[in-house]
Amino acid sequence: MSVVSKVRVGSPIREADQIVAELRRQGKTITSLSIGDPATYFKTPENIIDAYVKALRDSKTSYSSSLGILELRDAVAKRQTRLYGGSLTGNEVLVTQGASEGIDFINRALIDPGDTAVLFRPYYPSYLAYLNLAGGRALLANYSEESNWGVDIEGLERAIKKAPKGKKPKYLMVINPNNPTGTVLKEEDLKQIVGLAKKYGLLLVSDEIYDEIVYNGAKFTSVSTLAKGIPHIIINGASKCYDSTGLRIGFLIIPEHDRVSVAIRERIADIASIRLCPNTPSQYAMVEALNNVDEHSRAIARMRDEIAARVTFAAEMINNSEHMKTVKPDGGFYAFPKLHMGKLDIRSDGEFVTRLLQEECIQVARGSGFGAPDHIRIVALAEKAVLEKAISRIEALCKRLSK
Amino acid sequence: MSVVSKVRVGSPIREADQIVAELRRQGKTITSLSIGDPATYFKTPENIIDAYVKALRDSKTSYSSSLGILELRDAVAKRQTRLYGGSLTGNEVLVTQGASEGIDFINRALIDPGDTAVLFRPYYPSYLAYLNLAGGRALLANYSEESNWGVDIEGLERAIKKAPKGKKPKYLMVINPNNPTGTVLKEEDLKQIVGLAKKYGLLLVSDEIYDEIVYNGAKFTSVSTLAKGIPHIIINGASKCYDSTGLRIGFLIIPEHDRVSVAIRERIADIASIRLCPNTPSQYAMVEALNNVDEHSRAIARMRDEIAARVTFAAEMINNSEHMKTVKPDGGFYAFPKLHMGKLDIRSDGEFVTRLLQEECIQVARGSGFGAPDHIRIVALAEKAVLEKAISRIEALCKRLSK
Repeated sequence: MSVVSKVRVGSPIREADQIVAELRRQGKTITSLSIGDPATYFKTPENIIDAYVKALRDSKTSYSSSLGILELRDAVAKRQTRLYGGSLTGNEVLVTQGASEGIDFINRALIDPGDTAVLFRPYYPSYLAYLNLAGGRALLANYSEESNWGVDIEGLERAIKKAPKGKKPKYLMVINPNNPTGTVLKEEDLKQIVGLAKKYGLLLVSDEIYDEIVYNGAKFTSVSTLAKGIPHIIINGASKCYDSTGLRIGFLIIPEHDRVSVAIRERIADIASIRLCPNTPSQYAMVEALNNVDEHSRAIARMRDEIAARVTFAAEMINNSEHMKTVKPDGGFYAFPKLHMGKLDIRSDGEFVTRLLQEECIQVARGSGFGAPDHIRIVALAEKAVLEKAISRIEALCKRLSK
Repeated sequence: MSVVSKVRVGSPIREADQIVAELRRQGKTITSLSIGDPATYFKTPENIIDAYVKALRDSKTSYSSSLGILELRDAVAKRQTRLYGGSLTGNEVLVTQGASEGIDFINRALIDPGDTAVLFRPYYPSYLAYLNLAGGRALLANYSEESNWGVDIEGLERAIKKAPKGKKPKYLMVINPNNPTGTVLKEEDLKQIVGLAKKYGLLLVSDEIYDEIVYNGAKFTSVSTLAKGIPHIIINGASKCYDSTGLRIGFLIIPEHDRVSVAIRERIADIASIRLCPNTPSQYAMVEALNNVDEHSRAIARMRDEIAARVTFAAEMINNSEHMKTVKPDGGFYAFPKLHMGKLDIRSDGEFVTRLLQEECIQVARGSGFGAPDHIRIVALAEKAVLEKAISRIEALCKRLSK
């Protein structure tokens, strides 16, 4: 009998963190391009910090509502309406400890052992981890790398139909802009996804945490503008667009009032009540962040332009290599190149990533952790000089491994 | 087919929160004695706030380690060693989003559907909720109200033996000082519990979040001083003794290095990595809180004396009533009276609590949510005048319900 649970989960993004810490203790300089953390590279806007400090000085240090403070739920509703229309109120919003907890709550509210849910591959690893922790199993549809990680709608329908008879998938999940591929889904593709959700009566979950980090002329469409009248959940949060990762504030938006949406909202509220509440003063900071539209417009424009330049620089440098190739991202801040494994004397992306860390002191995440073997995920948030050096080192390892 | 999961969980402490919010919107003044939140009544110490502000001004707003920042893990180890001896280091400490997340992690790391764990009744509701969410089932031992909520050691052994053949309970959990009863376990009782854990090879989990809130001459003993050499986990955190509930910082301490302890530590670290990290700046605040022993000694002495006076006042007032009776607490900040239901024209503690809220505008938690029907849990943190008025109103409702 095993001591620990049979369900083994972890994060491929953080799995080498303890090794990195140990290497640093040994005096090595490690460049980590593993964690998508804008706040490491761009200072969190001053107005957010000031509001956070004010909340602390005003003694906002007690427990708060399990659903989040009213002011923040209202601010999220206002932001969503401002950007995407609709008639949302704070009642349809729940504040979570980062978007991660939102993903967890959805799975805990919906999944019983043996249930299924539909994910696209490559996927953000936590989707699978939380689904598995709840006892669920993923039905995987594939994005097509050949067509710029576009949606293969027939493949998606096949994935939906793989559910056991009489037990339809509990939800269908998309992330847009995509992590790890950096793709922004075309409105036409999204419409087809929404259409299938409707056809099969599936709850649609859309992770839109990178919604304002879109560039190269791409246009972001929120599922909330397409899925009116059908049950859906929007995941968002402060971490990326508000440059506040360490504040751990996420949002769940459940806009509709059909039977399914009401049941899910209530169930998630129940689950949220057990963990009492998210950090209280950081919620007040986020009220300022969301409501001060002028400050935010300036901050996000500056950050987005800089990210666009860095990601594009990284992607071009990667595509100048004969050992790897990436689809050019137009959202988020990742590059997700495919290694030409046939020409490299190496068995797996995992081995590549381990050797890259040990031999070149560069930390990236292995694609297999995102359901896409032979790939690596590079966070392209660092300054160009850092990216240049890091990608040169990846190239150097590739050269040494060349067959 | 149900939309939501079959496992229904929630918090009896917060279940009326939305009704309270609605009553307040209607202009009613509600006195809430439901949530054990010292920070509502005692200002979080200034040195903690100052350190929190400094962390924010120093841009500590990025993601941090999933295990918690090293400085805080070390500070927790130092505190534990200072208070209870031993030779702990930060390596045996994990920082969680409140103690609640620690409880959750333990269950997720250990419990597969069908597994069991041993809890004492009355229990803190989250123990059961997180056990059930993980698919586990509680084997309940009873504290004996007749002997001041003391341990019935034979009953505990019977509970352990109720596990299915060949599948021993995954853990045995105690909380000391107790929530909801306010009892501080005698060292002799704790030794017997540790003895049974040893006899049956059970992992021992001890929630010691109220460890410095002990009074009336009671003496607190940490399980860590008795369980050397056997696998055990200590749950603690900043919320209660450091008067920082809204900061959401908890600690898991897994001190031993046997096979079981190592496996659990690794598995919990994996699960923690999925949710990325706790709030970063609040961790820095807690480093100051734990390391500044002088400030803390002054703050906790002042708060403890005041809490002792309030709890004792409430308990005496309750025991002057002919409708209810409470064991006198000597730790924590709850009174947990038993209602003399036979003499009241009411069907359940749940109904009593609902009517108390609707008719007297007082919010308390129903005992049945703690596994102890016919009881109510009163948070005795408010000033005496508030407690006096609230308990008078409870008494007034009892009188109206008298048969």
